[in-house]
Amino acid sequence: MKSREVRLTQHFTGPVKPEYFEIAEVELPEPGAGEVQVANEWLSVDPYMRPRMAGLKTYIDPFEVGKPMEGGAVGKVVKSNSDKLAEGDYVFSMLGWREGFNAPAEALMKVDAEILPPEAYLGIAGLTGLTAYVGLKRIIELKQGETLWMSAGAGAVGSAGIQFAKAMGANVIATAGGAEKVAFCKEIGADAAVDYKAADNLGRAVKDAAKEIGVDGIDAYFENVGGDHLAAALDVLKRFGRIAACGMIARYNDDRPVPGPSNLTNIVTKSLTMRGFIVTEHMDMQSQFISDLSEWMMAGKVKTRETVYDGVEKAPEAFMGLFTGANLGKMLVKV
Amino acid sequence: MKSREVRLTQHFTGPVKPEYFEIAEVELPEPGAGEVQVANEWLSVDPYMRPRMAGLKTYIDPFEVGKPMEGGAVGKVVKSNSDKLAEGDYVFSMLGWREGFNAPAEALMKVDAEILPPEAYLGIAGLTGLTAYVGLKRIIELKQGETLWMSAGAGAVGSAGIQFAKAMGANVIATAGGAEKVAFCKEIGADAAVDYKAADNLGRAVKDAAKEIGVDGIDAYFENVGGDHLAAALDVLKRFGRIAACGMIARYNDDRPVPGPSNLTNIVTKSLTMRGFIVTEHMDMQSQFISDLSEWMMAGKVKTRETVYDGVEKAPEAFMGLFTGANLGKMLVKV
Repeated sequence: MKSREVRLTQHFTGPVKPEYFEIAEVELPEPGAGEVQVANEWLSVDPYMRPRMAGLKTYIDPFEVGKPMEGGAVGKVVKSNSDKLAEGDYVFSMLGWREGFNAPAEALMKVDAEILPPEAYLGIAGLTGLTAYVGLKRIIELKQGETLWMSAGAGAVGSAGIQFAKAMGANVIATAGGAEKVAFCKEIGADAAVDYKAADNLGRAVKDAAKEIGVDGIDAYFENVGGDHLAAALDVLKRFGRIAACGMIARYNDDRPVPGPSNLTNIVTKSLTMRGFIVTEHMDMQSQFISDLSEWMMAGKVKTRETVYDGVEKAPEAFMGLFTGANLGKMLVKV
Repeated sequence: MKSREVRLTQHFTGPVKPEYFEIAEVELPEPGAGEVQVANEWLSVDPYMRPRMAGLKTYIDPFEVGKPMEGGAVGKVVKSNSDKLAEGDYVFSMLGWREGFNAPAEALMKVDAEILPPEAYLGIAGLTGLTAYVGLKRIIELKQGETLWMSAGAGAVGSAGIQFAKAMGANVIATAGGAEKVAFCKEIGADAAVDYKAADNLGRAVKDAAKEIGVDGIDAYFENVGGDHLAAALDVLKRFGRIAACGMIARYNDDRPVPGPSNLTNIVTKSLTMRGFIVTEHMDMQSQFISDLSEWMMAGKVKTRETVYDGVEKAPEAFMGLFTGANLGKMLVKV
């Protein structure tokens, strides 16, 4: 089997450019003892990959220059030299951005492609969905009847979070960029949605949206953006408001330090809590999540939403699209 | 009884100036039915008063122009027209910045001036001490063997917090401005103390101090300062670090918005928690606090520390001294 793969050509700061990636083709040998050969069908591209491209050590190691990129992937076992996995089994791995690979069977996670479509394991039922779930359940501790502001509501985490928060009985105000995304947020259940690109004053627009849906303020903010969004949230949150911060995509492409919000003292004057988290620290919530998620999906409360690019060579373009807002729901690459 | 009092002449932003205050003298009438007349002995000046002088509504109402200032005070009942309080009793009230007042007995809190000196109720045994206690126990959840960075270590909250944290079995690195304050922090128990005015790089200096005392990093930061201190804390905290924010005195005299730290994304990448609090939201901890405090004081682990100005007319000067760092321990005015 030949496999095309996407390799990183250099570490970089600033905006992502196509020349930072190259396509290469490798010939996969026969799988060794205990190994399987997998043909990837779905690849995930995610914002957390951006700091890894800068060559900086954050909570995970940087990507290596000249090596294939990594990332979540779901594929089908096409050859097996292990009794742990059979041909036709579907597996989740972190060996994405490539068409196929050999790996020891025990390094792969078998997924059930009958109860959920295989690509769901890269989105709503995978780390993306779990991120939204952990943020709402454990970090924010969102309660029934409270009002949540979900930033980047049309994105992967945001669109999962809107649906989960509604299923939990909360009111949801979403923000997103552009009329199409605002419509999407409402379609998946947000009580109100604000186009941040069209708002003169983002905080005021969110407050107005709260008034329109008849709630008395914002109890919690789910931070996916940073920058002016965070500043607006510090302004509009009620006393004892909570902020779950799992990403600040507006900051990832900065090539020099950018000042934080000037109203950070609101954390003191309004007794706010801001808590950052990385989903992999909360894997203990996985079984509770899958149990809640399947209940919500069966009840029709939660649906999967994806934007799909075709072909492994499109992975860099799909990844860059995360920063220009090209996706509705989870961004995926179909091999 | 004649009472001199300090009145606010205008709301203001920017640095505090003497002309924003004036002294007036009033004649107190005989106390009415149910009232007592109190001669204040000790007045408290505190950073939280600063935003109230700006005329802005924060978590408490602004001070009124032309009216006497308010603030914590301990005084002696000199006339009683109530069976609830007797002449000679000591009471705590929020009717400070004046020599005396009449008030209904039930609006005042009787304090025991035999187990503790009366001024302690304005400092280590009052809201100041409780602030340090709540920050360490509930907000940071400081554990034995962990390492705390206490900012403004020579201040009222800071000097209480250093002693409490040591009594709780933690390691303490204090920061303070100038050699005298650094010596004071060590004298009251800090394992290490850093002069932030002499440090080229505050974060590095704190890290070096941690190395010197043989600990592997900073678990928690007690924020009294803001500005460069907060930025340094975001840099040096370990993963899962906690920040208790009860004040950012460096920001209170700003007359225009000042940008926040440029490394705020560390909250995400290091899974930090930053939580603001106002001590009056945590009065349920009062009895546990007094119980722990009296145990620590009897064991000689905690001592009161004060800087005293004489005469009610010195209250504005004492208050301004908070912003120039004129105090070691709690800043008080003796009437």
